[in-house]
Amino acid sequence: MEAFKRIPAHIGIIPDGNRRWAAENGYQKKDGYIHGIAPGFELYEMMLEFGIKEATFYGFTKDNNKRDKEQRDAFTKACIDAVELLSGKDANLLVIGNTESTAFPKELLKYANKRINFGRGLINLNFLVNYDWEWDLKNLIVNKKLESYDIPRVDLIIRWGGRRRLSGFLPAQSVYADFFIVDDYWPSFNKSHFLDALRWYQDCDVTLGG
Amino acid sequence: MEAFKRIPAHIGIIPDGNRRWAAENGYQKKDGYIHGIAPGFELYEMMLEFGIKEATFYGFTKDNNKRDKEQRDAFTKACIDAVELLSGKDANLLVIGNTESTAFPKELLKYANKRINFGRGLINLNFLVNYDWEWDLKNLIVNKKLESYDIPRVDLIIRWGGRRRLSGFLPAQSVYADFFIVDDYWPSFNKSHFLDALRWYQDCDVTLGG
Repeated sequence: MEAFKRIPAHIGIIPDGNRRWAAENGYQKKDGYIHGIAPGFELYEMMLEFGIKEATFYGFTKDNNKRDKEQRDAFTKACIDAVELLSGKDANLLVIGNTESTAFPKELLKYANKRINFGRGLINLNFLVNYDWEWDLKNLIVNKKLESYDIPRVDLIIRWGGRRRLSGFLPAQSVYADFFIVDDYWPSFNKSHFLDALRWYQDCDVTLGG
Repeated sequence: MEAFKRIPAHIGIIPDGNRRWAAENGYQKKDGYIHGIAPGFELYEMMLEFGIKEATFYGFTKDNNKRDKEQRDAFTKACIDAVELLSGKDANLLVIGNTESTAFPKELLKYANKRINFGRGLINLNFLVNYDWEWDLKNLIVNKKLESYDIPRVDLIIRWGGRRRLSGFLPAQSVYADFFIVDDYWPSFNKSHFLDALRWYQDCDVTLGG
């Protein structure tokens, strides 16, 4: 196993490109999401191997709910399956998202807004489910804290699918994060993507804005 | 002049790499900042030429104030000079930053927290001076609005100096922004950097997270 000197404490994962992958591979757009589950587990195993202590996956957002119903159903189902499968592993799960909206899957209510420990609890895994950056920040007005206050600063964000933007991913926690972009689509996940990101991260000097 | 179909309404400018440029060119680190003023004017002229309506320049931040006094004095002086020189042009200036700290230059108080129109007012130019993302967000708790509430959503962020991060730049306004990274240092500004960014932006589909 390749050894790295600097391991990010908390990694943000933006698994984009499911629909573009589906279209390029002869599927309907909605069928991309189910192909995004296995890559998540492969990445989970790699994160354990490299001693990553925390990761936050961008599940789906309020903005995503503008898509058509077939797609909404498909990405919601993929999120439920991913979280439920991980509940059988060694991770401490936390789901953050607006549970007061009907778009929040009731199957995931039991993981919402409190961390649930499973197995040996080797890693903290956070899922943003029906997440909305405005909802997150507006809680500063209402309750003087972020809705996502349990999620710490993100050190490295890896985004698949070539787009170079945050798309509303944890604005307060991402202020100092280094961004690594993978041009391949998320369902084409390959171990080398993650290794490339860790390798690149070795030379990002962390100054926290200083 | 090259014609572009899509012109970003609001561009964020992160002019990084002044100190690295100085070190590579035989200067002291602090001497990099003064070489960052002329590029700002060149970019200002290009933005007028392409009909950009608004731009926000990352001047300096609370985090930057951790640097030694020589550097602090140098970047503060460069910010003052840049804003004062622009006040003789055709821009509507707005300076956003924590004016209650002694690190805020008193010379810029007259531009702080209210927009001042100059000349023909062809572009809105915002400067973040002694800016602090936590101070900005915390005003949601105190006054139910961002300190930077007068600055709208950013469409395109161009960062010089190769680093791939926001370093605390307007977290709420940058949630949907596309990031373009220039590897050259800011004092090596070249017209092609900006043209490359605009060219790249043509193919960024704006979905606002959808």
